[in-house]
Amino acid sequence: MKFGDGVEASIHCAALLAGLDDDATIPGSALAHRFGLSPSYLQKHLKALTSAGILESVPGAAGGYRLARAPECISLLDIVLAIEGRKPAFRCCEIRRRGPERLPASAYAKRCAINTAMLRAEQAWRAALGAERLSEIVAEFQHNADPRSVAASNAFLGRHRRPQKPAAAG
Amino acid sequence: MKFGDGVEASIHCAALLAGLDDDATIPGSALAHRFGLSPSYLQKHLKALTSAGILESVPGAAGGYRLARAPECISLLDIVLAIEGRKPAFRCCEIRRRGPERLPASAYAKRCAINTAMLRAEQAWRAALGAERLSEIVAEFQHNADPRSVAASNAFLGRHRRPQKPAAAG
Repeated sequence: MKFGDGVEASIHCAALLAGLDDDATIPGSALAHRFGLSPSYLQKHLKALTSAGILESVPGAAGGYRLARAPECISLLDIVLAIEGRKPAFRCCEIRRRGPERLPASAYAKRCAINTAMLRAEQAWRAALGAERLSEIVAEFQHNADPRSVAASNAFLGRHRRPQKPAAAG
Repeated sequence: MKFGDGVEASIHCAALLAGLDDDATIPGSALAHRFGLSPSYLQKHLKALTSAGILESVPGAAGGYRLARAPECISLLDIVLAIEGRKPAFRCCEIRRRGPERLPASAYAKRCAINTAMLRAEQAWRAALGAERLSEIVAEFQHNADPRSVAASNAFLGRHRRPQKPAAAG
């Protein structure tokens, strides 16, 4: 069992966009370029994040993507569910009632104990993902990552933000 | 993201085998029949459970499968890892260092904060799965499932156990 690659790309994009100030945006093509991804591949995930209310898409020549809400209000669970869908990883196929010796449907009215236990464990996972805030991930990156990485991220935002800030008077 | 169907089948088979007494076994073909599965499909998963030390395969005419250890010592995590493999669901592809603007490798020596957070949440899931014991799932089934289901499971074991118990005199 494994997450699709879209989860990693989506979290990285959201973390990068958390560094924008004001109402600035970054074009999707610049985000794709940053991570060496095909723009059409990334576009699909940026759209899913937008539909889920995590990103905001601003149209027009000065448009692009920005976070739709504060990074304190975005969890890894929000992003995972936006990209992977809301269904549980364990999807009971009711095999207990397959086979030639199955009983009448009324014998299976109660939820299977296996399904219950699997979903209970998955709930613990969701709670843990829900406790991981984008703001904390960005703060950890800012404080603990190699300073060259932090500087490169800031430079990327400065180069690609829309609208561009006017150059400082020299 | 979703588990393969093999997880559900494997937990059901292990739960059924937990009802065997003595050193009895059940043939894989009977387990497949019980759940309406193809024997070759189920065989693959029974072999994985055997390799992982969860089941024991007894060869020969009176052979079949039984639990390799007490159901108190088998967790849902044991079964999930046996079937799905031990790799985490989140597999960091290091996209932070892709793209034309990547820095020298030394800038990425520390683990990415995103990978760390995803694995931390996954650890909570594994801990929760590890706390779900096969013995408790079987006990819940015995106490709470429809009595017809419990009777059908017991009858199945009686019919397919090897060696067969001698018929009661009567």
